[in-house]
Amino acid sequence: TQNYRITLLPGDGIGPEIMAVAVDVLKIIGQQFDLQFEFQEALIGGAAIDATGEPLPSTTLDTCRQSDAVLLAAIGGYKWDSLPSNIRPEAGLLGLRAGLGLFANLRPAQILPQLIDASTLKREVVEGVDIMVVRELTGGIYFGKPKGIFTTDTGEKRGVNTMVYTESEIERIGRVAFETARKRKGKLCSVDKANVLEVSQLWRDRITKLSQEYPDVELSHLYVDNAAMQLVRAPKQFDTIVTGNLFGDILSDAAAMLTGSIGMLPSASLGASGPGVFEPVHGSAPDIAGQDKANPLAQVLSAAMMLRYGLDQPKAADRIEQAVFQVLEQGDRTGDIMSLGKNLLGCRAMGDALIKV
Amino acid sequence: TQNYRITLLPGDGIGPEIMAVAVDVLKIIGQQFDLQFEFQEALIGGAAIDATGEPLPSTTLDTCRQSDAVLLAAIGGYKWDSLPSNIRPEAGLLGLRAGLGLFANLRPAQILPQLIDASTLKREVVEGVDIMVVRELTGGIYFGKPKGIFTTDTGEKRGVNTMVYTESEIERIGRVAFETARKRKGKLCSVDKANVLEVSQLWRDRITKLSQEYPDVELSHLYVDNAAMQLVRAPKQFDTIVTGNLFGDILSDAAAMLTGSIGMLPSASLGASGPGVFEPVHGSAPDIAGQDKANPLAQVLSAAMMLRYGLDQPKAADRIEQAVFQVLEQGDRTGDIMSLGKNLLGCRAMGDALIKV
Ligand SMILES: CC(C)[C@H](C(=O)O)[C@@H](O)C(=O)O
Ligand SMILES: CC(C)[C@H](C(=O)O)[C@@H](O)C(=O)O
Repeated sequence: TQNYRITLLPGDGIGPEIMAVAVDVLKIIGQQFDLQFEFQEALIGGAAIDATGEPLPSTTLDTCRQSDAVLLAAIGGYKWDSLPSNIRPEAGLLGLRAGLGLFANLRPAQILPQLIDASTLKREVVEGVDIMVVRELTGGIYFGKPKGIFTTDTGEKRGVNTMVYTESEIERIGRVAFETARKRKGKLCSVDKANVLEVSQLWRDRITKLSQEYPDVELSHLYVDNAAMQLVRAPKQFDTIVTGNLFGDILSDAAAMLTGSIGMLPSASLGASGPGVFEPVHGSAPDIAGQDKANPLAQVLSAAMMLRYGLDQPKAADRIEQAVFQVLEQGDRTGDIMSLGKNLLGCRAMGDALIKV
Repeated sequence: TQNYRITLLPGDGIGPEIMAVAVDVLKIIGQQFDLQFEFQEALIGGAAIDATGEPLPSTTLDTCRQSDAVLLAAIGGYKWDSLPSNIRPEAGLLGLRAGLGLFANLRPAQILPQLIDASTLKREVVEGVDIMVVRELTGGIYFGKPKGIFTTDTGEKRGVNTMVYTESEIERIGRVAFETARKRKGKLCSVDKANVLEVSQLWRDRITKLSQEYPDVELSHLYVDNAAMQLVRAPKQFDTIVTGNLFGDILSDAAAMLTGSIGMLPSASLGASGPGVFEPVHGSAPDIAGQDKANPLAQVLSAAMMLRYGLDQPKAADRIEQAVFQVLEQGDRTGDIMSLGKNLLGCRAMGDALIKV
């Protein structure tokens, strides 16, 4: 038996409901694959603010550090929106990324054949779309200094953030991206704004140099504005995309929305060593929280990503992904992905369906 | 007779061909509306680099300053892509924006009923889409300092750009946006990344305060990642969007691509006083340059925007827009917007068709 310590961060809104389903699924998978999960719950986001005044209590970070992987659900909600930014739920997420050194964010956007009609794009445009966005997650304008709101000599306020990348930061995420592309279709598109930004010129230079070590990967470059267009125009041209923190935030969400069902999309955030964090792309959906209406599938697929990328258990990951495929195949749907003639299930019932297949 | 001095900047690639059509159209419009245009041509972009070594010769900027409006076609091409960034064609464009103080970029994205099938999105999703993106154009990370590539103590290179906005810069573009929304459907969505960036917090605060002066305009806020999603998910929710330079670059291109035909989209760049610059959204398309294949309609519609926003001749602008509508209605198409059963025309023939209607 393989033992794993998993920190669970259910967070806010629908977080606890979808997390419960993922935990049930992991328990069954554990039995099937002879894996033993030791789950430990900790506070983050709004839930942590309410309990401790801080979005990321140090005990949470410690618990995460001592575990093999972290499964996160969702954070945030209207309730905490008016707090100062350093004690808002989002600060907890950014603190977790920085604290665990999670510099690589993997965000797949894949069209599932059963849900293709959920896309706002035409079937022929999105059929077969399978994109992996590799987003740098601990650098760039999210963390660069100086930052803040300053007062100028004339008494006017001036807001400042700094987009910074060093060569080693670029190389580090570049390697993850080339390795990822190599395991996929061997195509990597690096996105920057090198026609305007110096930080992007360094990015492009470094990625280009690195490509010499990966002759089997076909590298291309796009400006971020063009990349946003191309995602809408012809998304099938993309295999793996690598980009900085801010551009990755925007493009991975645009790519996710091509599928029409962001309630289905997981993500992985990985560091050089230590535990990764695995979480759905969607938010905490406070409007439907506690009503057993949430779609738990992105959370369940995040558990699959945890098995694949965090615990090196690809077979167990495959099994979960198959189960999700099967429930969709048999017509089970939560409200967000419901369509005519399908079976409408609540969050828990979807969990039960997963466990049965 | 009203006299106008117009600087023409044909630039590179297909620029000269499409500019020629726009000038022909303006001449006819001048006769019809008793307007006299005095055209003066000047160099910019690659053409200027080849002739003078600089992407924006000072004589060009002087000529522009002395005119009532500037009509620009397109700049750039593979040929100049490997030059250092400060003498690349794009530097000419940025220099023109800064030199003329063009802080407000208006980028309409409108679905034309005749071309609705060109969109990669489903008809019901895009039918009636009519979005105006108001992008700040002389501030933000495009111009903020410090910027450059520096060497750290450890000998490593470090790329830096700075996103800066002052209150007065935000207020200035905010006013343009509220005024624009007021003349449209009265809905303004401000886009930022206030959950992470301080510069965005200042942006959001300032725009929110300003909204008190425009009680007839309904203001909302979106984070940039969510805005990119919503443009794909449900573009009809948007009327007017206001955002900073970088986010505007990305979102206006994404919005443009919703229409499926960026060969149709004009733009206006305006300052507090002095001449505005009017140009198509599409690029210089070096692959089809000189082959009489280019679509001149975005250039012609840019001339219409020039009449409307630059010269206060809305009736003449209306007339041009009607002519474009009519040629589309009668089935005339250039290659980029061609579909079965329509009449395929070259660039010049499209110009002739416009003049006949
Ligand atoms: C909540 C926010 C801070 C976060 C980000 O911008 O990184 C989110 O949008 C994401 O993509 O994970
Ligand atoms: C060519 C480039 C510098 C420019 C920009 O980024 O502003 C272009 O993308 C645009 O949108 O006009």
